Amino acid sequence: MELYFLGTGSGVPSKERNVSAIALMLLQEANSVWLFDCGEATQHQILHTSIKPRKITKIFITHMHGDHIFGLPGLLSSRSFQGGTDELTIYGPTGVKEYVQTSLKLSGTHLTYPLSFVEFTEGKIYEDDKFTVFCKQLEHGIPSYGFRIEEKSKPGELQVDKLMEIGIKPGPIYQQIKENEVTIVEGEREIRRKDFIGPDKKGRSIAILGDTRATEVNEDFVRSVDLLVHEATFDKEKEDLASAYYHSTTVQAASLAKNAGVKQLVLTHISSRYQNQETDNLLTEAQQIYANTEIARDFYQISIPSN
Amino acid sequence: MELYFLGTGSGVPSKERNVSAIALMLLQEANSVWLFDCGEATQHQILHTSIKPRKITKIFITHMHGDHIFGLPGLLSSRSFQGGTDELTIYGPTGVKEYVQTSLKLSGTHLTYPLSFVEFTEGKIYEDDKFTVFCKQLEHGIPSYGFRIEEKSKPGELQVDKLMEIGIKPGPIYQQIKENEVTIVEGEREIRRKDFIGPDKKGRSIAILGDTRATEVNEDFVRSVDLLVHEATFDKEKEDLASAYYHSTTVQAASLAKNAGVKQLVLTHISSRYQNQETDNLLTEAQQIYANTEIARDFYQISIPSN
Repeated sequence: MELYFLGTGSGVPSKERNVSAIALMLLQEANSVWLFDCGEATQHQILHTSIKPRKITKIFITHMHGDHIFGLPGLLSSRSFQGGTDELTIYGPTGVKEYVQTSLKLSGTHLTYPLSFVEFTEGKIYEDDKFTVFCKQLEHGIPSYGFRIEEKSKPGELQVDKLMEIGIKPGPIYQQIKENEVTIVEGEREIRRKDFIGPDKKGRSIAILGDTRATEVNEDFVRSVDLLVHEATFDKEKEDLASAYYHSTTVQAASLAKNAGVKQLVLTHISSRYQNQETDNLLTEAQQIYANTEIARDFYQISIPSN
Repeated sequence: MELYFLGTGSGVPSKERNVSAIALMLLQEANSVWLFDCGEATQHQILHTSIKPRKITKIFITHMHGDHIFGLPGLLSSRSFQGGTDELTIYGPTGVKEYVQTSLKLSGTHLTYPLSFVEFTEGKIYEDDKFTVFCKQLEHGIPSYGFRIEEKSKPGELQVDKLMEIGIKPGPIYQQIKENEVTIVEGEREIRRKDFIGPDKKGRSIAILGDTRATEVNEDFVRSVDLLVHEATFDKEKEDLASAYYHSTTVQAASLAKNAGVKQLVLTHISSRYQNQETDNLLTEAQQIYANTEIARDFYQISIPSN
C-alpha cells in the first residue's frame, strides 16, 4: 500500500509539477491501482513509472475542475489501445459521466473494456472484502470531495505458544484451527479459534482531500488516519488569497492534521509560484505546526506500513 | 514562417513522441501562431518552447480522433489562466464545438477571451489580407481533412535603377511612388507605379494533411506547395496494415510528394513501434522515392524561406 504522486501542481502544469493525479498502489492487496484525479498528461507521467494502465481499475475524481479531469479521455483511450480488458469504474461528482462519454463519443473512441460510472454525493461509496471508501463534500465553490480509504482489519496471528502449551504440535492442524471457528483435535478435543488467535490487525487508513478551503468541519472525516493528503496551494501569509479562491495554506493544512490526530501529512497541489528554496520554506512553516509533514513532488512515493 | 512540430507520434503518446500538434509560426507575418491539431499535453510541450499560448489565435483540427483533440480544453484553459484576451478561433470538423463547449462547461471553466468556432466541410475556410486557407476531406474512416495555407503575393520591389535613370533621386518620394498608383513629381511628371515596380513576390504555400490513406485524389490539393506535411504511420512493407487502418506508409507519402511536385516533404505521425535506427530506415525508404524528405521529431523546426 503506497501512494505514488503523479501530479502535484495547481491549476496549470509547469515544467516542475504536472496537474493533479495520485496513484494508490494496491498491487499486493488487490492486484490493482486506484487513481485519484486525472489531470491532463497523467498518462504521460505514467509512462515514466512502472504503472500499467490496465492495472488501474478505479478512478476517483475529487472535483470537476479541468486540472483534475482533463487527462481522463486520453488515459481511458490508451488503456484500451494497450489491450486492457478489465472493467474500470470512475467515481466522481455529477457531470463526470457526461464529460467522459461526450469526449469518447465525439472522438470516435471504442473501448476494449467495460467502463462504468458512480456519481456520488456523500457517504460510503465503495466496499469490498478488503476496503471501504467514504466520501465527504469539502468547501471549494464547486462540489469538491475528500475520500477516506479504510482497509479492513485482518484476523490476528495464531498464538503458537498457547497451542504448544496444551500439547498441540505444529502441522496442517494449525491451518485448520485458523480457518474454522471450532476444530476437533485427536477425535475429541474442541479447539475454539477465538481462544488461540491474537487481536485483529487493524487496517490502514488514508484520507485524500480534493481542493478545499480550510475548515474545522473536515476534522472528523480525517480523524486518526495513517496518512492525510491535503492541498496547500498557498504559503501561510496568503490566508486571504486562499480563502478567496477556496484553497488552503500550508499552516491551515498542518493545523488540520494536528487537530485531527493524523499520523502523517503530505501536502500537494502546490502553486507554481513556489520554486526550489520557496518550496523548502513551505515545508518548514507546515512542520512548525505539525512535524510529521512532507511536501509531495511529482513521482514522490510514500508507503503506508502495516499496523 | 516556420513550422514547429510539437507532437509527431501516432495514436498514443510515447516517451519519444507526443501525440499530434504542429505550430505554424507567423510571428513576423501576423504576430500570431496557428496551431494544427492539439493532442493531449500539447500545452506541456509548449512549456518547453518560446511559444506563448496567448499568441495562438487560430487552431485548425484535422479530425476528431482523441490523439488530435484531447489537448484542447487544457490549452484553452491555460491560455485564459495566463491572461490571454485576444479572440481565438477553432476551425474543425462537426463535433469540435460540442466537444470543447461540453468540456469547458462541465469543468466550470470561464475563459478571459472570446472563443469562436468554424465547423467546416471543404473549400476556402479562411481569408485575410495575407493568407487563404483551403481544406479538403481525406480518406480516414471518419471525416479527416487536409489544410492548404497560401500566403498572398506581395508587390515587387521598387526598381531604383529605373527611377535614377529618369533623374528621380532617393527620398520620401520613393515611398509615395510605391504606395500610390500615380505620383506627380516636380509638379508635373506623372510617375505610374506599375512602370517602376518589379514582378510580384509569390507567396509561400504549405499543405498539412490529417490522417489519411494514400490516394491520388489528394494530389491536386497539395500540388506544388513549398512544404507538404504528410503522415507516415507505417513503413513501406505495411501497405495492407496502413490501408486497413486508413493510414499511409512512408513510400506512399513520398510518392504523393513526387507526383504532386511539392518542394519539400516532412513526414510525421510516426508509430511508436519505430525507434532510433528504425526511424532512419523510414527516412531512407521515403528518400529513395522523393529525395527532399525529412522525418519530424518532437520540437523539430523548419523554416519556409521567402520565394
